[in-house]
Amino acid sequence: MKRRQFLTAATVGATATAISMPAIAQSAPEIKWRVTSSFPKSLDTIYGAAETLAKAVADITDNKFQIQPFAAGEVVPGLQAADAVSSGTVEMAHTAPYYYVGKDPTFAFGTAVPFGLNARQQNAWFVSGGGLEVMNEFYKEYNIHSLVGGNTGCQMGGWFRKEIKTVADLNGLKMRIGGFAGRVLQKLGSVPQQIAGGDIYPALEKGTIDAAEWVGPYDDQKLGFNKVAPFYYYPGWWEGGAALQFFINKAKWDSLPKTYKAALESAAHFANTEMQAKYDARNPAALRQLVAAGTQLRPFTGEVMDACWKAANELYAETSAQNPKFKKVHDHYMAFRNDEYLWWQVAEYTYDNYMIRARARG
Amino acid sequence: MKRRQFLTAATVGATATAISMPAIAQSAPEIKWRVTSSFPKSLDTIYGAAETLAKAVADITDNKFQIQPFAAGEVVPGLQAADAVSSGTVEMAHTAPYYYVGKDPTFAFGTAVPFGLNARQQNAWFVSGGGLEVMNEFYKEYNIHSLVGGNTGCQMGGWFRKEIKTVADLNGLKMRIGGFAGRVLQKLGSVPQQIAGGDIYPALEKGTIDAAEWVGPYDDQKLGFNKVAPFYYYPGWWEGGAALQFFINKAKWDSLPKTYKAALESAAHFANTEMQAKYDARNPAALRQLVAAGTQLRPFTGEVMDACWKAANELYAETSAQNPKFKKVHDHYMAFRNDEYLWWQVAEYTYDNYMIRARARG
Repeated sequence: MKRRQFLTAATVGATATAISMPAIAQSAPEIKWRVTSSFPKSLDTIYGAAETLAKAVADITDNKFQIQPFAAGEVVPGLQAADAVSSGTVEMAHTAPYYYVGKDPTFAFGTAVPFGLNARQQNAWFVSGGGLEVMNEFYKEYNIHSLVGGNTGCQMGGWFRKEIKTVADLNGLKMRIGGFAGRVLQKLGSVPQQIAGGDIYPALEKGTIDAAEWVGPYDDQKLGFNKVAPFYYYPGWWEGGAALQFFINKAKWDSLPKTYKAALESAAHFANTEMQAKYDARNPAALRQLVAAGTQLRPFTGEVMDACWKAANELYAETSAQNPKFKKVHDHYMAFRNDEYLWWQVAEYTYDNYMIRARARG
Repeated sequence: MKRRQFLTAATVGATATAISMPAIAQSAPEIKWRVTSSFPKSLDTIYGAAETLAKAVADITDNKFQIQPFAAGEVVPGLQAADAVSSGTVEMAHTAPYYYVGKDPTFAFGTAVPFGLNARQQNAWFVSGGGLEVMNEFYKEYNIHSLVGGNTGCQMGGWFRKEIKTVADLNGLKMRIGGFAGRVLQKLGSVPQQIAGGDIYPALEKGTIDAAEWVGPYDDQKLGFNKVAPFYYYPGWWEGGAALQFFINKAKWDSLPKTYKAALESAAHFANTEMQAKYDARNPAALRQLVAAGTQLRPFTGEVMDACWKAANELYAETSAQNPKFKKVHDHYMAFRNDEYLWWQVAEYTYDNYMIRARARG
């Protein structure tokens, strides 16, 4: 700055800016946060949501509010992201709430539950159905405030070494599958396993496990599961639309100026839509390549789906009976789901049905 | 401010803030814009997107960037929103680009085209498929820069006084339906009519028209069409996911500080998701009430859908042959659509299919 400009600014400062400067200083302080992702950078679509949010907030605030993204393991391990936010070790995380069903199964509704909402319906529940309020009320005891943080869309049912035709084929099946969904399969005799992403391929190859679910074509292709398990099942009935969320330490959230809260909220919406858009744009080519390389696509049979549906409903009833917090969110979420599918079957579903058939016909 | 604080601030100003103040002044000027909506306030879900964007931008910028929403007719009529932005009469509009197919049919891809993308796919095309770039390149000659601005989801096929069972039933049918879709129906002998929202009810009641399409249960119920036309058809194959956009005068957009551009972009994403979420949350109850009041839900027959599909493809071929701009966007959009439905038929569709049947079964 030239001396003359400085003098002018200083003079003005003595009159007009004497009032406005403190307001600016208060509303636009320099803040540096860290957002720890539960995902590695190699899962670029999902990891990218934290980067998109951080860049949007920096752009909006002229770099005054800087949020630096860290991959899983750089600050804390991926599955400790919520703990790190609760304790204030980091201000923020990008994570899948259902990773924390071990603390309380109620966390699952922040991502997906078996036979739950599809991706668009999950957004509707969060944003206009009272879902974010219900979840934030629950997260409060963990010192967490949440925002929307993306969605994968309906996931695939995973990779199987052998075909699954009947419910009996699930008996004894050793499958890499996460918390709540694993408990549904357990009711049908399967043996769910928790295995980190990088260890799935060798376990499938050696036959230590019989099956593994991951995400969908774009992410699954990178890990090469098609080379060791030929059958690729669908749909992932335990993740009809798997949502991610941004978790923010509640005290840190409460202490933010209103402007930064608003910036974060809108930036989270940007990241939310972009992540889903990227998956939707990237999955088709990966699916085509997988099928060209010999992958056998298989829908779960009606018998298998019905048995899982029944087992899931039993698990909901049992968990609701034991856990009032779970029951409260479950009842809210399921009432919304039933309304959504009442409407979905009319215009949305028949439209997609026609478009799929018309495309196949050419 | 107390004198002591002011003196402290002034002293600091002579050192640190001497450098940072001009940056703040430049990046956070006071700006007042107007956003003219193409919709009346009574269409609260769609009109609300402009209000949500305006509030988010004001909150983010501490009211320095104020965007005042106006309903259709308050500044300019709803269908002149794009012209008002082009000419700079207003800085911004919230509108359905397909209203402007009379200027150039290429505008239609900014909202929806017959047998086009569903709502989530339209977002994917805009945000990750290059769609926003392609549309903004096209809009440039109208001095328009666009952002995402919401979606209604798949619309209903509208209200009919008599059942439509065969293609022959479309012959001579006088239907209130918009531009490009009307031209498809014209090929099948229908007589499309442009009638403003408020005039549809009396026209349907008197039989001046035989049918009318509007939006979906939540909006249609308000206009009372069910009282004068008993058959409510689906799906609205001409609007598988009708997108809205924010149109911004390009010179005004280019002149914004980077921070305000970023604020607008993220706020548009907030409005985009919220509008869809509101429709998804509100349509089920309206549908239930309409059916309880005697509305007869009817799917378009396969024969009718196939004839419309064929007529739409003819229209695309004819328009592409005449209009290179249309052809360019059409080819980009349709390649994306074909990829999307390749993927959609696997996990998404089979999941929705199961959920709809399971719900019906109870």
